[in-house]
Amino acid sequence: MAERPDLNKDTRVCISLAGRPSDLGTRFHNSLYAELGLDFLYKAFTTTDLEGAVRGVRALGIRGCSVSMPFKSAIIPLLDGLEDSARDIGAVNTVVNDGGRLTGANTDVEAVASLLVQHGLDPDQRAVIRGSGSMASAVSSAFARAGFRRTTIWARNRTEGAAIAARDGHRFSDVEPDAADLLVNVTPLGMTGADEDVLAFDPDLIRGARAVLDVVAVPVDTPLVHAARAAELHVVTGAEVHALQAALQFERYTGVRLTRAQVARAAAFARGT
Amino acid sequence: MAERPDLNKDTRVCISLAGRPSDLGTRFHNSLYAELGLDFLYKAFTTTDLEGAVRGVRALGIRGCSVSMPFKSAIIPLLDGLEDSARDIGAVNTVVNDGGRLTGANTDVEAVASLLVQHGLDPDQRAVIRGSGSMASAVSSAFARAGFRRTTIWARNRTEGAAIAARDGHRFSDVEPDAADLLVNVTPLGMTGADEDVLAFDPDLIRGARAVLDVVAVPVDTPLVHAARAAELHVVTGAEVHALQAALQFERYTGVRLTRAQVARAAAFARGT
Repeated sequence: MAERPDLNKDTRVCISLAGRPSDLGTRFHNSLYAELGLDFLYKAFTTTDLEGAVRGVRALGIRGCSVSMPFKSAIIPLLDGLEDSARDIGAVNTVVNDGGRLTGANTDVEAVASLLVQHGLDPDQRAVIRGSGSMASAVSSAFARAGFRRTTIWARNRTEGAAIAARDGHRFSDVEPDAADLLVNVTPLGMTGADEDVLAFDPDLIRGARAVLDVVAVPVDTPLVHAARAAELHVVTGAEVHALQAALQFERYTGVRLTRAQVARAAAFARGT
Repeated sequence: MAERPDLNKDTRVCISLAGRPSDLGTRFHNSLYAELGLDFLYKAFTTTDLEGAVRGVRALGIRGCSVSMPFKSAIIPLLDGLEDSARDIGAVNTVVNDGGRLTGANTDVEAVASLLVQHGLDPDQRAVIRGSGSMASAVSSAFARAGFRRTTIWARNRTEGAAIAARDGHRFSDVEPDAADLLVNVTPLGMTGADEDVLAFDPDLIRGARAVLDVVAVPVDTPLVHAARAAELHVVTGAEVHALQAALQFERYTGVRLTRAQVARAAAFARGT
């Protein structure tokens, strides 16, 4: 009768906390629990009382908690420890509860650093990262982790952009650089909404580059990705970043390391494609 | 791929808090959500931090919370209001969260009072309620609600038993009464465990009675129920009490009033029968 007759008192629960929850995490994690026969459940929540929500995570023994804006930094004083990925940038997207001890990590940093290696992108390349928000901060840190030494943060927000660049040993520019090998968009340009038709980099800069990483996840096929493919550049999409960061959360919560095929299937299911 | 592909950011969550969670509520509620196509999820939890758990209920917007021992009285100061059923006995088994306002009720009291009427049990009958624990307190209150005026609380614990009797206008006895029309067991006698073979009332008292209510839910077929059926008495089982109190919780959480057939099916599923 029940669609989840397996749900029981011992089922472990993971949640997410976001100002505006989406269904991506819920669908990604739950589909993998079903596929792998894991006695877990994942549910997205929002809250106006972050401290109370974290108190609830502790009191209810919730195993893991994914954290989105606007809670990524505010949650830090409520935790018991941080991994380097979160400490380096002062932002948490993943909380693991080990018997009452809450540790924060940032799988966005880890995912981007890992993808740079997986895609064989040379750390001697000149990279331009456009953006100065929370995700741009994570991407900048990932580039430093991956050994990229010729990176420029390009942002209108001089204060935030210069601070991120200084922290990670990158250069800062408030104007678009003339040339680059690797173009990285970490702005909402190209994202579904008001700026979905906006190309994040100058067409000439794109044609002169070798690779593009667009962190925009919805849609996958942004104007930047489209232009990069037309120019036959190497492309890394936001879908890959988001799937891998979710897979790294999944591994922390469940102890199960996913295959690339499992990640790809769950990510496609989550996106409804 | 997911067994609950319907699970999403808007799915409403109900939980239970118990010192020793069982699967009965989880199976009862989730099977009905599936049958009725309600976008709800029910999950049992335990906690060593009741205040933190209730804080979590508020912060996460959890719609309903079933409460078992040892939290039924301790939770009261953490709530915003009580229905009469809970206030009368100082014990809550159901919390409903209406937009941040938490109200406590006691559906055990309501279920027993309702069953007395449903089964056509005459309030002029002489009733004996054996027990003085938390559930006996609820049953005693239900008898007063249903207008039973010739009720005796029989318990070894004179302090608790006499207090319950005085509160509800019943008599108290610390020895087994000689005669009664309606025998009510609210002790663990007959329950799976050390006392499962123990008959809760004297065989002569049973043979002289007209009806038996045994609140023990597991097993349904206790020695008392067995003896009452052999003596051709009217029998109300603990299974009925527990199914109806769960149905009353379900109605509060979801706004859906269940049919008797739906309650019976869900209860049978929950019990694995």
